[in-house]
Amino acid sequence: MRLPEALDDVIHQFGKLPGVGAKTAMRQALVLTGWSKSELLEFGESVKVLASLTRCNECGFFAEEELCTVCSDLGRNDAETLCLVENELDCLAIENSGTFKGIYHVLGGVLNPLLGVGPMELNLRILPERIKNRGIKEVILAINPSVEGDATCSYIKEILPESVEARRIGFGMPMGGHLEYLDSMTISKAFENRKNF
Amino acid sequence: MRLPEALDDVIHQFGKLPGVGAKTAMRQALVLTGWSKSELLEFGESVKVLASLTRCNECGFFAEEELCTVCSDLGRNDAETLCLVENELDCLAIENSGTFKGIYHVLGGVLNPLLGVGPMELNLRILPERIKNRGIKEVILAINPSVEGDATCSYIKEILPESVEARRIGFGMPMGGHLEYLDSMTISKAFENRKNF
Repeated sequence: MRLPEALDDVIHQFGKLPGVGAKTAMRQALVLTGWSKSELLEFGESVKVLASLTRCNECGFFAEEELCTVCSDLGRNDAETLCLVENELDCLAIENSGTFKGIYHVLGGVLNPLLGVGPMELNLRILPERIKNRGIKEVILAINPSVEGDATCSYIKEILPESVEARRIGFGMPMGGHLEYLDSMTISKAFENRKNF
Repeated sequence: MRLPEALDDVIHQFGKLPGVGAKTAMRQALVLTGWSKSELLEFGESVKVLASLTRCNECGFFAEEELCTVCSDLGRNDAETLCLVENELDCLAIENSGTFKGIYHVLGGVLNPLLGVGPMELNLRILPERIKNRGIKEVILAINPSVEGDATCSYIKEILPESVEARRIGFGMPMGGHLEYLDSMTISKAFENRKNF
């Protein structure tokens, strides 16, 4: 008694996703066998359509035309500031906060030698040219704090033109947080980054 | 700035899977955008193929022919015992334990009025006929212990022919377990089910 090959295939595919172990993949695939034919065809097709997703020629965010809605928006208030982010969801989070009115640049990850991610694997090639063409004065590195993120920031600072101010987003206590539940690293950062009020 | 429709579709589809919340669905869909075209087409196709999965006419397990490998195996040692399970993975788990040599019957779930699962939604219609045709003498209910599982067992006991012995699998302390970490319900069951040794 064994599972049909078709189901094994789906289990294998789900298992390739982050955070999905063997057991979860089996359970999810099994749930799919309870879906109707039309639902399954719809799901499968939706994944296939991703193969034809296109990206903004400049920032690397998703775009249906050559440029995304931000890069093609001539009315952005602060077009001299560029925000570097790891991925597209970071762009959305920042946009939703309404706090930033410059343009973005999506790296597509951080440097990680162990996983074979070097500078060539990141969306860095056109960055210096972009900074020049757009007349960027400040680059904000909105990179997550981690060993890899820190190394990536150091590397990028080195390759940026000297005329540009490179700044990393501030670290400290999150709004609504409780000191008693904060980890030591965050508390250290919060004390280090204390300021007059 | 928003995600392309194609990506929203995939996020919606992943979000329909159990245990996948909005954030996880977004993250998984985003990871997919980093896959190659051929990988995406393969993934999508594998899900579509599930639409043509067929099942055993008798037990409800997956089968490429009319009967699955267990139901069509005339050499099963204990063909007078039928094991009722909730789903196909339960069959596999029991088969892998090598402990049972009878035939299976996959219910496809348990009774759950709140979710609209009544007797008609379970694979119960052909059960009495199957028991008669196969000359089944004992039915083992390998149903997970839960309020819904208990109710399902009570219901099934009522509809089984009187000539059949209905038994539920034993509950107690799992092998390799530690008393100090067991929940009270399991400890109660273990004491209740104590036996001579």
